[in-house]
Amino acid sequence: MTTAAPAPTARRDRLDALLRPRAVAVVGASERLGNGRNAVENLIAVGYPGAVYPINPRYREVLGRRCYPSLDDLPETPDAVYVAVGAAAAVEAVRDAGARGIAAAVVHAGGFAESGEAGAALQAALVAAAEEFGMAVCGPNCLGLVNVHDRTMLYGASMPRALEPGGIGAVFQSGSTLLALMNAGRDLRFSHLISSGNEAVLDATDYFDVLIDDPDTRVVIGFIDGFRQPQRLLAVAARAAAAGKPIVLLKPGRSEAGRKAALAHTGALAGSDQVLEAVFRRHGIVRAHDLDELTEMATLFSSSRRPAGRGGLVVTAVSGGEMAVVLDAAADEGLTLPPLSDAVTTRLRAALPPHVAVANPLDVTATGLYEPDLYRDALVTLASDPGCAVLAVSQDMPGAMGDVQAERYRRAARAFVAAAAQVDKPVVVFSNLSGDTDPQVRAILAAGGVPFLLGTRESLKAIARFLRFARPPADPEAAAAAVGPPVRLDPAAVAAARSLLRRAPGPLSEQDSKAVLARCGVRVPGEIVATSAAEAAAAVDRLGGPVVMKIASADIPHKTEAGGVRLGITSPAQAAAAFAEIVASARTHAPAARIDGVAVQEQVAGGVEMIVGCSRDPQFGPVILLGLGGILVEVLKDSVLALAPVGRAEAAAMVRSLRGRAVLDGPRGRPRADVPALIDTLVTVSHLAAALGDDLDALDVNPLLVLPEGRGVVAADALLVPARA
Amino acid sequence: MTTAAPAPTARRDRLDALLRPRAVAVVGASERLGNGRNAVENLIAVGYPGAVYPINPRYREVLGRRCYPSLDDLPETPDAVYVAVGAAAAVEAVRDAGARGIAAAVVHAGGFAESGEAGAALQAALVAAAEEFGMAVCGPNCLGLVNVHDRTMLYGASMPRALEPGGIGAVFQSGSTLLALMNAGRDLRFSHLISSGNEAVLDATDYFDVLIDDPDTRVVIGFIDGFRQPQRLLAVAARAAAAGKPIVLLKPGRSEAGRKAALAHTGALAGSDQVLEAVFRRHGIVRAHDLDELTEMATLFSSSRRPAGRGGLVVTAVSGGEMAVVLDAAADEGLTLPPLSDAVTTRLRAALPPHVAVANPLDVTATGLYEPDLYRDALVTLASDPGCAVLAVSQDMPGAMGDVQAERYRRAARAFVAAAAQVDKPVVVFSNLSGDTDPQVRAILAAGGVPFLLGTRESLKAIARFLRFARPPADPEAAAAAVGPPVRLDPAAVAAARSLLRRAPGPLSEQDSKAVLARCGVRVPGEIVATSAAEAAAAVDRLGGPVVMKIASADIPHKTEAGGVRLGITSPAQAAAAFAEIVASARTHAPAARIDGVAVQEQVAGGVEMIVGCSRDPQFGPVILLGLGGILVEVLKDSVLALAPVGRAEAAAMVRSLRGRAVLDGPRGRPRADVPALIDTLVTVSHLAAALGDDLDALDVNPLLVLPEGRGVVAADALLVPARA
Repeated sequence: MTTAAPAPTARRDRLDALLRPRAVAVVGASERLGNGRNAVENLIAVGYPGAVYPINPRYREVLGRRCYPSLDDLPETPDAVYVAVGAAAAVEAVRDAGARGIAAAVVHAGGFAESGEAGAALQAALVAAAEEFGMAVCGPNCLGLVNVHDRTMLYGASMPRALEPGGIGAVFQSGSTLLALMNAGRDLRFSHLISSGNEAVLDATDYFDVLIDDPDTRVVIGFIDGFRQPQRLLAVAARAAAAGKPIVLLKPGRSEAGRKAALAHTGALAGSDQVLEAVFRRHGIVRAHDLDELTEMATLFSSSRRPAGRGGLVVTAVSGGEMAVVLDAAADEGLTLPPLSDAVTTRLRAALPPHVAVANPLDVTATGLYEPDLYRDALVTLASDPGCAVLAVSQDMPGAMGDVQAERYRRAARAFVAAAAQVDKPVVVFSNLSGDTDPQVRAILAAGGVPFLLGTRESLKAIARFLRFARPPADPEAAAAAVGPPVRLDPAAVAAARSLLRRAPGPLSEQDSKAVLARCGVRVPGEIVATSAAEAAAAVDRLGGPVVMKIASADIPHKTEAGGVRLGITSPAQAAAAFAEIVASARTHAPAARIDGVAVQEQVAGGVEMIVGCSRDPQFGPVILLGLGGILVEVLKDSVLALAPVGRAEAAAMVRSLRGRAVLDGPRGRPRADVPALIDTLVTVSHLAAALGDDLDALDVNPLLVLPEGRGVVAADALLVPARA
Repeated sequence: MTTAAPAPTARRDRLDALLRPRAVAVVGASERLGNGRNAVENLIAVGYPGAVYPINPRYREVLGRRCYPSLDDLPETPDAVYVAVGAAAAVEAVRDAGARGIAAAVVHAGGFAESGEAGAALQAALVAAAEEFGMAVCGPNCLGLVNVHDRTMLYGASMPRALEPGGIGAVFQSGSTLLALMNAGRDLRFSHLISSGNEAVLDATDYFDVLIDDPDTRVVIGFIDGFRQPQRLLAVAARAAAAGKPIVLLKPGRSEAGRKAALAHTGALAGSDQVLEAVFRRHGIVRAHDLDELTEMATLFSSSRRPAGRGGLVVTAVSGGEMAVVLDAAADEGLTLPPLSDAVTTRLRAALPPHVAVANPLDVTATGLYEPDLYRDALVTLASDPGCAVLAVSQDMPGAMGDVQAERYRRAARAFVAAAAQVDKPVVVFSNLSGDTDPQVRAILAAGGVPFLLGTRESLKAIARFLRFARPPADPEAAAAAVGPPVRLDPAAVAAARSLLRRAPGPLSEQDSKAVLARCGVRVPGEIVATSAAEAAAAVDRLGGPVVMKIASADIPHKTEAGGVRLGITSPAQAAAAFAEIVASARTHAPAARIDGVAVQEQVAGGVEMIVGCSRDPQFGPVILLGLGGILVEVLKDSVLALAPVGRAEAAAMVRSLRGRAVLDGPRGRPRADVPALIDTLVTVSHLAAALGDDLDALDVNPLLVLPEGRGVVAADALLVPARA
């Protein structure tokens, strides 16, 4: 007797019981070292305000708390239970808890789906128990979770030295990553730390969904091997974007080796990393590539200020040499530093000694360290520049300085805090040297609310993402492309295409594929299927100009190999002769093939060859690909993906992101290609793919010829493949 | 009366006096806070074994040492003097020291060339004084230097908490960088720390030269804004490579903004970063992009072991999630992990619990932390694999763990040390999280001689460079290309070219340029200069096939615009007509031009268009460029530079490094291009450019047509430009 999975609202209530329980039990509580002891110890140490009920028939007391033999013996029904027993016993414990009316559980044990068939069966039993009672279950194979603001720990590992409440809501599929960040000793202040483990019941997306609405959470971060509810991720990410809450994810798998390792780790669904990048781009999810990037982004995004106005990054340093390193890293991240306004330049020239060259970046030289008041005032002046959205101070604070030097650097840190207090824009300090930093300096900056980042590259990357999240870069091309009447698909055209796909035993013929595109408004070459030499001759006259002749037969997929293609035919006589040759050659090559005739096609001259394709990602559904065609596709392997459908602005961004896009700009005196028509075609084809949904397995337009400006595009060849039954 | 600069040997003796002085004086010694006090204090604190002579007429004693009014009052002549007085007084002090027979000086003061015209004059006076007495001078505008093994400090900034002797010889043009690394609190052990400042007399290359021969120095590192003796750098780098001592340089200026900042900082010579990359590649100089990369590379390269045998990287971790991140970073650095041998696989399967999947990388799971002896034995077994050249252990050691967890991680660290002690291959531990790490863990690893690196990306990059430095990757293509008779240039051909260049008032004509190439063995199209329509007609018959006709006139550089070019002429009659038209058109276009006739050229069909060019870098001399030609050059901007001359192996590497190299592999059924002939041509042209040296400003072959395999290359157009007088 299993009940249905709870409705979303019920689910949210259950999650609330998990994250904010009013009383908790620890099944397997113990005095012995291990998670059964840790869980109780952590609740006591953190000052959990509710009742804590240790459960273990072998103890009368655990760590001074009365211990109960079983859940049934408790004086009240707690909201959540932390399960510290082994896998098989844990399934029983969850079932007991559900039967007792407990809404939520954390299952610590490993030995579930990550460890073979027997474990997978146990995990299925765990899921069944959770579903039977509509329970919110975290894990199994996890460390548990911490709600820092509410002083709640359902957490089985050792505590770090300190845990300050803050704005980072963190979800980790990897327990090691949680341990590393939780114990980092950086000024990382969390609202929640959630080790999601095998995600048998609740997954990362469920937690993201709650954290987006949590008033204490300013940024959601995660370490994600794979997504279990990809479509839901899209909805949650859209909600996060609307709420202005960044999601920052460390998601390995950029390389083939990394992808395999990530899959092996948690058995998540396979998926193309290129599609994932498209998902992240569409929904503003920020991607970190390693723990350091995740740490610096979490630090910056959780700080209390956001980039101001339409300005950019202003940087100061006390070292010309390191400034050059900073500028290289800024360039790597696509950051350019805006020039200072005349007013600010004038004020700084008056205030700073003559050897300081006033500019952005500003090298205040060692003067900055020896005259901290001067540095403080210069920072305040810089922040007043309308071009300044973020003010970043490059300042190493190494951890093993002697007393004299350390004191000088601490004075500088106090100057940075004083400057930040006088302005309302983000002031960020970063060290070009990671590793240890002076603990007093860190304390000064943390107390002053000034984010302190480590590492030139990581800091500049975090700042670049910080600026971009607050204000996506102005894109005049995309803005221009977005103007114009909306691209509309004729519903009758979509219905006809669907009907064709559903009837087709295999890929549609070139003629049928092109007919689908033509009904959607994509131009295809003029074509007449001739069934005799005379018809072929007449077709040349009607189409005018040179033509291509191709055997028309669904049974002959490789027409060139069958001798079934002739190019550059200009006269009726040539066409008549070619008809006979093509048919004869095709008959020899494929005696059993049904031949419909010979297609006589307008031969389109000129144009840049592109490829437009659609496919269905197993996780995220229809995607559209744009690539360079012709010889460039082999040389460059240059293509870009987006989730279908795309609007004009996104289509324009796809075109611009091609490395070889200059081929469209008319290199070497060639005419500029008709990019607006290319954009319209991308939009149209992507809407077609999205509308056809699961009926369409793939769609390829190769080549799509992009003609000179004002002359449009032509789909010279096309192929639609129905979904396999 | 100035003497000549000292000969190299004398220079080395003088440098010895600077780096290993038997007695030192401090001019401007003082009890007051500042470098005049620091310098004396540092010498005392470090236990400098020689005599220390404070010099200051205002003191009788400084920090308990007898103080002398002037250098003339000293009881002996010290080897070196640390000059702590202001710029103008410092010049006097150096002159006095030279007159007194003191061989070396450190000048701390700023206010020299970095600060305007008056400063530049002072710097010139300083150089003159140094030259007059053949002195080795460090600075000005520097912190000074430390010889850690010999407990010698001529150093004016505050001391770090500790300074252990080791194998890193470090030269910093940026004082801030020296302070950051010296005070980092990492296990960075230096032989020398040298702040080279303005490098008025001695520059970074001088110091590198000495450090290469220093038995204590295992790796030379530097922060370099620019090179003052580029040609000498080449010689020193070659010597370092021969000695097997890596040079690791942080050299900003990869971006235009960074390049300008670096130049502004120390006024170093301008130079193209692409040329610098070619220099580094040629001589095995390892480039770091930021301080973190420099730190991790210095740590790893200064460790006591080098990669063993022909194997690769073996990695272990206790986290499947982090392993995936590590694999992504490894892929970014071009590292692939070799599979384990059968023997090692069998032994590990027997030793490890069944839930551990035995492979490279090896995820030992949390078992590694809970059973450190098992982990230790697994590491020893892994290191025994013949495929293992470096064994890397991925293990976060965050700095703020609670006691229980910290103790567990310390036991793991002891296991790593124990494993390293049992094997002779490099065992490296790295943390995926930079920032603070547990100090006891660091101490355990440092005491055990196990390098501990920070940051996934930086660690994997350092390991990749470590492996590559020990054993450049096998390159079958380059090896195959290197076989064959040496490319020889006919000295008479070079002499003829030189004579042409020296006589020419401007660029050589196309005909002369091609003639130079032809004499060097580079095939050019057949060509006859016709002076009449009849000669043109006859030329078509002699050359056969289609021809190109071009006006032959040194006074008409832009032939197409002058109506002076006709393509695809196949018959004598066409040629005769074209002759008349071309001459008439050219006369109209340029009435004053001297016309030599009309060149009738073989029109070469097919072939891949490439560009081969030579130019002279202001710092490093002749360089050769190879790029894709035709439309691809505009679309891709894909080119590679090398110092001229190149050998076949290097030329092959240039070809392979082109992003669009697939165009040579015969994409889309085209024939493969004759890459061996392209390589030979690169070698020939590079030798020609090197032989012509300063007589040649530029050489361009554009396009060089690379014909199908076995058919060679043809220089379809060429241009040689003599050096401007």
